[in-house]
Amino acid sequence: MRHPVITGTTQIIAHLGVPTPAFKAPLIYNPWFADQGLDLVVVPMGCEPQDFADFLPLLFRLRNTRGALITMPHKVRVLDLLDDISTTARICGACNAVRRAPNGRLVGDMFDGQGFVRGLINKGRTIGQASALVVGNGGVGSAIAASLAEAGLARLALYDANQQASQALAKRIACAYPNIRITTGSNDPLGFDILVNATPLGMQAHDPLPIDPARLSPASFVGEVVMSQQETPFLAAARAAGCQVQVGIDMLFEQIPAYLEFFDLPSASPDQLRRLAHLPL
Amino acid sequence: MRHPVITGTTQIIAHLGVPTPAFKAPLIYNPWFADQGLDLVVVPMGCEPQDFADFLPLLFRLRNTRGALITMPHKVRVLDLLDDISTTARICGACNAVRRAPNGRLVGDMFDGQGFVRGLINKGRTIGQASALVVGNGGVGSAIAASLAEAGLARLALYDANQQASQALAKRIACAYPNIRITTGSNDPLGFDILVNATPLGMQAHDPLPIDPARLSPASFVGEVVMSQQETPFLAAARAAGCQVQVGIDMLFEQIPAYLEFFDLPSASPDQLRRLAHLPL
Repeated sequence: MRHPVITGTTQIIAHLGVPTPAFKAPLIYNPWFADQGLDLVVVPMGCEPQDFADFLPLLFRLRNTRGALITMPHKVRVLDLLDDISTTARICGACNAVRRAPNGRLVGDMFDGQGFVRGLINKGRTIGQASALVVGNGGVGSAIAASLAEAGLARLALYDANQQASQALAKRIACAYPNIRITTGSNDPLGFDILVNATPLGMQAHDPLPIDPARLSPASFVGEVVMSQQETPFLAAARAAGCQVQVGIDMLFEQIPAYLEFFDLPSASPDQLRRLAHLPL
Repeated sequence: MRHPVITGTTQIIAHLGVPTPAFKAPLIYNPWFADQGLDLVVVPMGCEPQDFADFLPLLFRLRNTRGALITMPHKVRVLDLLDDISTTARICGACNAVRRAPNGRLVGDMFDGQGFVRGLINKGRTIGQASALVVGNGGVGSAIAASLAEAGLARLALYDANQQASQALAKRIACAYPNIRITTGSNDPLGFDILVNATPLGMQAHDPLPIDPARLSPASFVGEVVMSQQETPFLAAARAAGCQVQVGIDMLFEQIPAYLEFFDLPSASPDQLRRLAHLPL
């Protein structure tokens, strides 16, 4: 069980959020840092919502802060504290990684959707000129839609039980990527290259399926954000329909290399990270 | 090389100061925490002087902050940020450990002198009713004098090239411990049970000795704060005069159990700590 040895020269990546007990990042990053001999450690910091706006700038004034991972409940609030944010973070209205640029500016990005996109590409699929349906347009759905758009998607359908959420997301994506054709209001999967369940449906045993499996085509790539089990009933149905599928946990490991690049650290493959991680997966 | 595995439930003891590279605490505490299976880690935080007053209270509002080790340049400044400080910290005008009491108050103490006192006692000597000469009345000399006073010293002589420092320290000790006989202005070791070099003399190769070795009696216990080498010329002279001696590094390991008790953690013997520590000693 490798773990970084902390010395006086060790840099910190703070993992900010509450509650902290379910944090996985220390158990994924730290074994990789130890394996690579990097003098760097991810440290959970249980920052209360009312303290976050004061704490974050001071944290980044420590000489040995390398960056921060931002999780609930700070992902939205953090945007107001940054100097520069990526297009993806702007579309999501949320940010989950912060670093200090060499010019001193605090820079934020959002990588939740990158995990989905990289996993899809690593499974041999392409996004350029493709079409996608994203069901569930909250935090993670917005992130996936924004990352798909950034990767060159041609056509995007958004669906959420809350129609205003879909329409607002559509508008933000259209502003940043005016060439994408965007529709809202339907979760019919017919004719889409990529299908995403970004709702929590599948976490509970008797949840309805987010997309009608009878309308699935074997040509579609079907992905899932729910991580509570290896294969949700929705993914099982997609697999039965002949679709290539992506389990929720893949998103987690596929997005870590994006963070490593953001923090200007040696990158790793998702498989390397998964092999080293101290996770019960 | 054992090191704590950091998870979402890990508590932090922040080691605050700049510059951080010479920090030894992570290399002493963390192996002990790992050995004991404690879910706790010492993390260096290079806090700038101008940020310290804002940072410390916020640090202690994190849900997983267990305590803080305070080092240069914050040891004096920290007193203004605390709700309760020990008599020793008050005498020193400095504090090197902070915890949050169950009632929420920030409590500070100073353990630099405890290391000297515990080392002396562990070497079979006693302080109650004894006499001591402390040469060098700056930070660490004040701490040793205060801890000797707390341990029941009967007579104390203070000497510093800066006479005002000696007199001010004498006054603060006299207020807290009115029964101790205190004198200042002489570094003549004759007749003292305990002699302490708390000056930096001995760090450089050609430093003069802090106390005239010709006046040493073999009955005296002679201790040293300089850690740059195992035995300074002063300690070598004291040993040659037949005195029992205490090297500087002993103070370091003898004071750690005092911190562990302060943070309400399982204590360790200095030998256990030394055996586990990742230090080139």
